[in-house]
Amino acid sequence: MAKKPKWIVEKEQARRQAASETVWLFGIHAVRDALLNPRREKLRLILTKNAADRLGDALIACDLEPEIADPRKFPAPIDPGSVHQGAALEVKALDWGALEDLVVGGEDRPVVVCLDRVTDPHNVGAVLRSAEVFGARAVIAPARHSAPETGALAKTASGALERQAYLRVGNLANAMERLRHMGFVLIGLDGEAEISLDAALTAAEDRPVALVLGAEGPGLREKTKETCDFLARIPYAGSFGSLNVSNAAAVSLYAVRQLR
Amino acid sequence: MAKKPKWIVEKEQARRQAASETVWLFGIHAVRDALLNPRREKLRLILTKNAADRLGDALIACDLEPEIADPRKFPAPIDPGSVHQGAALEVKALDWGALEDLVVGGEDRPVVVCLDRVTDPHNVGAVLRSAEVFGARAVIAPARHSAPETGALAKTASGALERQAYLRVGNLANAMERLRHMGFVLIGLDGEAEISLDAALTAAEDRPVALVLGAEGPGLREKTKETCDFLARIPYAGSFGSLNVSNAAAVSLYAVRQLR
Repeated sequence: MAKKPKWIVEKEQARRQAASETVWLFGIHAVRDALLNPRREKLRLILTKNAADRLGDALIACDLEPEIADPRKFPAPIDPGSVHQGAALEVKALDWGALEDLVVGGEDRPVVVCLDRVTDPHNVGAVLRSAEVFGARAVIAPARHSAPETGALAKTASGALERQAYLRVGNLANAMERLRHMGFVLIGLDGEAEISLDAALTAAEDRPVALVLGAEGPGLREKTKETCDFLARIPYAGSFGSLNVSNAAAVSLYAVRQLR
Repeated sequence: MAKKPKWIVEKEQARRQAASETVWLFGIHAVRDALLNPRREKLRLILTKNAADRLGDALIACDLEPEIADPRKFPAPIDPGSVHQGAALEVKALDWGALEDLVVGGEDRPVVVCLDRVTDPHNVGAVLRSAEVFGARAVIAPARHSAPETGALAKTASGALERQAYLRVGNLANAMERLRHMGFVLIGLDGEAEISLDAALTAAEDRPVALVLGAEGPGLREKTKETCDFLARIPYAGSFGSLNVSNAAAVSLYAVRQLR
């Protein structure tokens, strides 16, 4: 039997690791959204009496018995500064399945967002919201050196974490090659690039598009840049200033939808 | 002598209050940007030895003598969780002068952003960055119920706080009326609006534009909505999901620049 390709081994490893990890979501909105998501595997629910009253509708819809806790000694293992509003839910990370199944087919033009080592959960949460609004098929990030599914990410994502595919892969460059193989044009956002985003999107014609964004400061890694079909910049930027990464993602997604 | 109009009185009050307040900026980047800004009034600089070495270039450019502090007992009055990197600088808020002087004239199409009670400093910081990138003349917010110039805002703004006009006014609706008087078309962003942002921008022709955005959750206040010429939504939004306010601002600013 032929040896499995390295990327399959890495993908399986990442999925096994994700399957064994649990996440504590917190805050009324994030907990309600997860309770109402039938695809979300729920393990343990801790609520104050007051939070249980506020979540009454979601509790009926889900068959998990809450543990009622004293608000002064809230026992969930979350960061002390977290605004939990008396609600915490331990869950498994969502399994979004294989990249290929998520991103091909469908009626509208397939668009995905790749994040190269964006570690700030607030940025990733905001990107998930924009990806959902503009109908991206998936947000793809490396399993290591990127923001994991955490309570802080869920809270910033404001419900989008339950609905927007967030795929963490063993190796981002390999995932990008697979996207190219599926017909995607890979456009890396880079403030130093010579061509504008519009020019790159025009060159892409009506093919599926992957928008590739790096962390602030370091930007895209060399290997990631080399894997892109185009490096493009968002126009109008002056000599000073740069967009926050989630704002750059939102503008790029909007630009794709404007040109479709 | 005629009694001063209410909005002038309120503006003067807001400016007097701002003039008496000081802000502690922190973090190497924010402190460097402020030290290098000749328009920034600097009061007190506290650095660890290490931070003083890293800021050597900026210290030479500025004539403020740093107090060298022990990193284990850093004496600046900032939040304990703040990542100050051994650098803190007490400053006065920047005085951007009168709205009228900032927003009229110039060669490109004047664009401003009005924020209706956006209190999260991270959101306002990101809006300042996008405003700078897309050449907005000013970001305008009410003096009360909006994010003040703080260290956290400065850090998220990543230098833009020193360069992008951030004007806090006594009454937002009054400021909007003054903008209308100066020829601005006031476009409020509202997910429930019937017309799209593109349609509103087409109707605005080539006149100056004020983009008006509300806080997440409450959105625009009734009074703010009534003061707008158009309420418009960013297209493509599905039935679920909404953009983070800074992402909505970035997309709207980009849309204006695309159509000019």
